[in-house]
Amino acid sequence: MKKHLDELMAKRGLDAIIITGTGDHNPAMVYMTGGGHFKASVVKKAGLLPVIYCNPMEREEAARTGLTAKLHHNQKTNPAAQADEIRWMLQDAGLANGKVAFYGRVEAGEFMAILEELRKCAPEYILVSEPQDNLLMETRATKGESEIARIRKMGQITTRVVGRVADLLSSSRVRNNHLINSADSLLRVGDIKKLINLWLAEEGAENPEGTIFAIGRDAGIPHSSGNPEDILELGKTIVFDIFPCEEQGGYFYDFTRTWCLGHADDQVMQLYQDVKTVYDTVVKELKPGQLCKDHQRFTCDLFEKMGHPTILSHPGTTDGYVHSLGHGLGLDVHEAPWFSTNVEVNDHLVPGSVFTIEPGLYYPERGMGVRLEDTYLSTTNGSFEKLAEFPMDLVLPVRKS
Amino acid sequence: MKKHLDELMAKRGLDAIIITGTGDHNPAMVYMTGGGHFKASVVKKAGLLPVIYCNPMEREEAARTGLTAKLHHNQKTNPAAQADEIRWMLQDAGLANGKVAFYGRVEAGEFMAILEELRKCAPEYILVSEPQDNLLMETRATKGESEIARIRKMGQITTRVVGRVADLLSSSRVRNNHLINSADSLLRVGDIKKLINLWLAEEGAENPEGTIFAIGRDAGIPHSSGNPEDILELGKTIVFDIFPCEEQGGYFYDFTRTWCLGHADDQVMQLYQDVKTVYDTVVKELKPGQLCKDHQRFTCDLFEKMGHPTILSHPGTTDGYVHSLGHGLGLDVHEAPWFSTNVEVNDHLVPGSVFTIEPGLYYPERGMGVRLEDTYLSTTNGSFEKLAEFPMDLVLPVRKS
Repeated sequence: MKKHLDELMAKRGLDAIIITGTGDHNPAMVYMTGGGHFKASVVKKAGLLPVIYCNPMEREEAARTGLTAKLHHNQKTNPAAQADEIRWMLQDAGLANGKVAFYGRVEAGEFMAILEELRKCAPEYILVSEPQDNLLMETRATKGESEIARIRKMGQITTRVVGRVADLLSSSRVRNNHLINSADSLLRVGDIKKLINLWLAEEGAENPEGTIFAIGRDAGIPHSSGNPEDILELGKTIVFDIFPCEEQGGYFYDFTRTWCLGHADDQVMQLYQDVKTVYDTVVKELKPGQLCKDHQRFTCDLFEKMGHPTILSHPGTTDGYVHSLGHGLGLDVHEAPWFSTNVEVNDHLVPGSVFTIEPGLYYPERGMGVRLEDTYLSTTNGSFEKLAEFPMDLVLPVRKS
Repeated sequence: MKKHLDELMAKRGLDAIIITGTGDHNPAMVYMTGGGHFKASVVKKAGLLPVIYCNPMEREEAARTGLTAKLHHNQKTNPAAQADEIRWMLQDAGLANGKVAFYGRVEAGEFMAILEELRKCAPEYILVSEPQDNLLMETRATKGESEIARIRKMGQITTRVVGRVADLLSSSRVRNNHLINSADSLLRVGDIKKLINLWLAEEGAENPEGTIFAIGRDAGIPHSSGNPEDILELGKTIVFDIFPCEEQGGYFYDFTRTWCLGHADDQVMQLYQDVKTVYDTVVKELKPGQLCKDHQRFTCDLFEKMGHPTILSHPGTTDGYVHSLGHGLGLDVHEAPWFSTNVEVNDHLVPGSVFTIEPGLYYPERGMGVRLEDTYLSTTNGSFEKLAEFPMDLVLPVRKS
């Protein structure tokens, strides 16, 4: 949580941190400022409150963050001038020398050029690089009350929109084994995605990364987002994975259901049952303090005992269970804690962890895939709370044709 | 244009370029791939077609880009493993050594860590930094036919939504000098912004950076986005600046009108007339081949002759004309060509340039601001085309109360 920032800076020996970039769709900046329509730098010296530096045109937006807002003393945009400005901000923030780390979404080549100039013009600062599992990721990995409330609200929005999609599909007419719309044309994946964006906008949410709505063979490939031209055939698996966020890049939610329209054959039903069994077992076994990778290993064991290949038993497989059990969620749709079994990843579930649980099975050559996903909170009393409820049924009833 | 990429790489002595990050809301990546739901790296060796490297889960999304898609040989996420993967991709792309530059939106600290590891593990590559005015920015600064068509379509969407906002305001009832909604409550800036997002979603567009809809004093500060709680008072200036993009971060449009509801007093009318005169004069004087900064200087001259302070005559002023005349527009809402008068900026208008023209005047203490903005194309026949038409009137009629 943000209140631990100074403690974590001390642990890493950082004298200051700098967060740069836009105030929207930039998780580190949104975390430090609450977001807004600006491009700015936030400088936090160890032990002091952060200060935001902006251009005069954006002074009101910067002030609205609640941080102390100051104006840049130089608005030139070449790398040398930007490096000089970083040096000036660090001095202005009270740091004469020491270790400084950088956060925020930047343009790769331009950022390299600024760093080069900074090393030349300000050798008194040691520029510290940070791995993916960095200071702000560590801070962000446990959520406070207001963050949880915002994610919970996104969960309500998400499941309301999923409910509207289910209602639309169930109430559509059927012709020749496919859904048709009110204008008597075939309903397509692209139509559904457009409605999802519209309904999210009605709820004040955004969908910057799009929706996975993948039917048949596409459902068998975890991140295939689905072909907009595909028609909605009864009996095929539809993987519907939706991950919207608050306006201008705030907190996300992440949610998946797998549906078959009208009916499901035995093979699909078995796949669904296997995923559902694993989902239920894993959720029951969640333990505060446990390594996330232990839950991933447990999931692989369960699937393997059912006869499915997994990425642990068959590295590189594209059949069976081919991804992580889940991931942390917040201002990024994917963030710490990570469930990877890689040796360098050792994240734990702790009170305040918000994360997804999303076992799945994929058989692209058999034209099917099943994934079930909900977002959970590890509470302070040791229990785990699903942040939004929604039925898990596989078969979505359709109108009799 | 993209067809000049090899020529521009040769001019800069680059043997390969690497573009990394997500396939959405990442201009360099969208430019090279067309975008999609993936996180990947594109490697282009000089003289060869680009290759996209992805994880197995995202192989279908990567293949959909039309580029040759290959799988990463290592999916670990620590900086050393990522650096090793970059080295492997460069070798796989046929480059044994040479100069390599980086593009795309990355996380600052993590990218630093990867570069450090790469310098250690792959000294055969010279990692070239790039200023803001980099290779891909230069390539992107002139648009081809299909890019222009997409921006033009975004212009149509944008002006249709602006028209719906105008219709809503004009048809709303008036009570005590303010607009009220159908439920008899005060209409607020936040209500308008929510409808804008909804109407953009209906058109299949996104609004990732929000809308500026700023009334009164807020209108006097160029990038103040407007307070959602503000009510809509007749006679106050409203600066309405809207800059949506295609779904998942494609091409933008940028457009501003200034409105007074019902009536405008003489002082506001005079401000509007000054801005309109400058707008018309500047547009008439646009010349292909001319330095953008010459147009900015000309604009400052015009405003100064009218008695307004400008950033050239009064550096740091927050009254008068306080920003650039315009900016290039494409996959970024702000990109080259730049109109800055800084000595290092020397962009020209050339056939294929798409850019905004947006003179404005701001007097925050007098509670008013006026800006007029359209997006223009420099055509191949030497003329300039406004990419979407919309009336420029200041006063928006309202219903008689």
